[in-house]
Amino acid sequence: MNAEIISVGTELLLGDVVNTDTAIVARALTTIGVNLLHTVTVGDNPQRLQEALELALSRCDLVITTGGLGPTDDDLTKETIAKTAGQPLVEYPDIRTRIEEYFTGRTISENQYKQAMLPKECHILPNDHGTAPGCVCTTPQGKQVAMLPGPPSELEPMLHSYLIPYLQRANTEVIQSHKIRVFGKGEGAVAKEIDAFTQNANPSAATYASEGEMYVRVTAKAASQEQAEALCKPVVEQIGACLGDFVYGVDVDSLEQCVIDILREQHRTIATAESCTGGLLAKRLTDIPGSSEAFEMGAVTYSNRIKSLLIDVPEELLEQHGAVSEPVARAMAQGVRKKAGSDLGIGITGIAGPDGGSAEKPVGLVYLALSDGKQTWVRNMPGGGMVRSREYYRWRAASTALDMVRRYLNGLPVNP
Amino acid sequence: MNAEIISVGTELLLGDVVNTDTAIVARALTTIGVNLLHTVTVGDNPQRLQEALELALSRCDLVITTGGLGPTDDDLTKETIAKTAGQPLVEYPDIRTRIEEYFTGRTISENQYKQAMLPKECHILPNDHGTAPGCVCTTPQGKQVAMLPGPPSELEPMLHSYLIPYLQRANTEVIQSHKIRVFGKGEGAVAKEIDAFTQNANPSAATYASEGEMYVRVTAKAASQEQAEALCKPVVEQIGACLGDFVYGVDVDSLEQCVIDILREQHRTIATAESCTGGLLAKRLTDIPGSSEAFEMGAVTYSNRIKSLLIDVPEELLEQHGAVSEPVARAMAQGVRKKAGSDLGIGITGIAGPDGGSAEKPVGLVYLALSDGKQTWVRNMPGGGMVRSREYYRWRAASTALDMVRRYLNGLPVNP
Repeated sequence: MNAEIISVGTELLLGDVVNTDTAIVARALTTIGVNLLHTVTVGDNPQRLQEALELALSRCDLVITTGGLGPTDDDLTKETIAKTAGQPLVEYPDIRTRIEEYFTGRTISENQYKQAMLPKECHILPNDHGTAPGCVCTTPQGKQVAMLPGPPSELEPMLHSYLIPYLQRANTEVIQSHKIRVFGKGEGAVAKEIDAFTQNANPSAATYASEGEMYVRVTAKAASQEQAEALCKPVVEQIGACLGDFVYGVDVDSLEQCVIDILREQHRTIATAESCTGGLLAKRLTDIPGSSEAFEMGAVTYSNRIKSLLIDVPEELLEQHGAVSEPVARAMAQGVRKKAGSDLGIGITGIAGPDGGSAEKPVGLVYLALSDGKQTWVRNMPGGGMVRSREYYRWRAASTALDMVRRYLNGLPVNP
Repeated sequence: MNAEIISVGTELLLGDVVNTDTAIVARALTTIGVNLLHTVTVGDNPQRLQEALELALSRCDLVITTGGLGPTDDDLTKETIAKTAGQPLVEYPDIRTRIEEYFTGRTISENQYKQAMLPKECHILPNDHGTAPGCVCTTPQGKQVAMLPGPPSELEPMLHSYLIPYLQRANTEVIQSHKIRVFGKGEGAVAKEIDAFTQNANPSAATYASEGEMYVRVTAKAASQEQAEALCKPVVEQIGACLGDFVYGVDVDSLEQCVIDILREQHRTIATAESCTGGLLAKRLTDIPGSSEAFEMGAVTYSNRIKSLLIDVPEELLEQHGAVSEPVARAMAQGVRKKAGSDLGIGITGIAGPDGGSAEKPVGLVYLALSDGKQTWVRNMPGGGMVRSREYYRWRAASTALDMVRRYLNGLPVNP
């Protein structure tokens, strides 16, 4: 089955909002073996939406729209699709009641009731997190159009709870896909090393770069889950062997998920002291549900004074070497570990930019330390050479710290 | 001038990567008055790329592609576009030299040199942050196709330094646009209040929701910047008056930018103590360049033990009221302020979920406190009612804290 996503919203064309919906829907379609061949965005413009819809229906079996289901006048997705499917919009009393319940104790503006209007014949997708329901309707040519709301917090649960199960009942070919995640090696180098695999069609293997790391996706198609998995498995293993300990996981969500999982498994705890990353490492670790079992304490120590006050970095060290230095990174890792009474301590100090760099200590220079109470390891990111953004340097520094922890916990050399 | 963006990359269709490039390019086009009417994504498939290109060229004047310029075999954008524009690809010796310089001291794989091949007649867009240059070439029908690399860290500087200035030399109509940013009021309510303005065409006004907040965009078109601005100005002022102190800024980047700006202006400092947000507030504040002038210290105090140890929250308070309570939020704000010696202190404690909730203290319940040493204000997010994601609750809590600080610094009631 081939699909196309049409996102509706002028805010997307103005660049005010990043379109995360498409990636969320795309990922879900991949898991159930639906091929996504195109995605398209149009503004809140019924004519262009209709043209996009007609083109999509001419080249695929399933169209999924995101956005344009809200209460305001420029939300026109349902109207346009109902017209194309040759169906009137009618009010669904159950949905009207649900809207009234949702707003219990608050005033309901008349335009909210627009959300109770849906095509006369459709499969309703309930919205457990908002007032605009979605639906799937069938065109006279037997193609399906599914409508999802724009806000990701409403779209995502509706997709997983209602649309995907609905679609799964209809699909036969299965795609199985695995993601081999790599930190510390670039896409170009990996592409060369696994050249033998990327030439094949089924399973296919392809390399992708994302900011600061890369991954290899292995994908097989077959009539059943088991057959597709049997095609993938040996290739995933061979690529894994080829890339060695630069692989931090297969089908894991992120470095932070990987680190929290191992910490919990080993009943170990961690504490972080951050200067240039300003809490990003703590934020990434605590993004993971259940991280409270492993994450003991985070200190964001921007100034020298706070580094000494909070995690006992000796003042002489700061004076002698400067805040951005290997000895200070060490002292931060050791100090925060001791303060928190945790098994591991991380110290990060560097220059995220755009200001604050010098010839000797360029923007992007970061020292990272990991201490286990017996030993302390340090890695540095040289920075400088290429001018990257503040965001990039901060993200990359947090990832590098996570990679050091992962390596330590897995008994690998902390620095490759 | 009408434009269309074509993003190229199978990783986008698999949902592995969120397409941020489109928003970055869209925003830049908006500022120079180019109308973006469609955006499209295709995989690394030359035939579908060619079809998308032909359709785009049939309906707009400028096509911008993102991605597919890299060194690997599936990077086929240049080849496909050169073919459509009827031009051979030739090697540019300067670019080859630059690639060699970039890899000084490292091995260059042969496929890297592919990046030195560009259409014979084109305007080159240098890549100051990577090896793949972009270019603009003109079709036999006089339409322009610009090619940008996929990684945002390369695309963004190329766009702003080279493509936008190049396009500006050719464009005549000007769009002026302002974004009125609102926290603490929903899109539906605002849409109703400013109904009189959203009916107009020039300037137009439209409401947009983004996770946890909303904004109104006012847009005018005219022959000159001054004329467009003259159309916008009164409408921006009237809408601002209508929404009162729920407006946190016009054309400001974010709540955190707004807070750091005022703190620096007033020479005041802040410290944060976070439980459920786990460093997200510190991270957001330190995202802002120059935040080190205002941000004194951040404490991520997940466990009760660390709350007492690091920021002196009395143990009896934790025992008596539980960690997620108004008195503990107060004590956190007061404690971190005192510890850091800062002007302001923030305390956040809550239940981000998905686990840890109860009937009495549901997931999403968050207490937020702001202390200035004389007085402490508390706000709470009730949570519960609707089940939202961990990410949403954390983001919304950090935003709420920022809004409290903004209100305090501006002499407004801390709680509206």
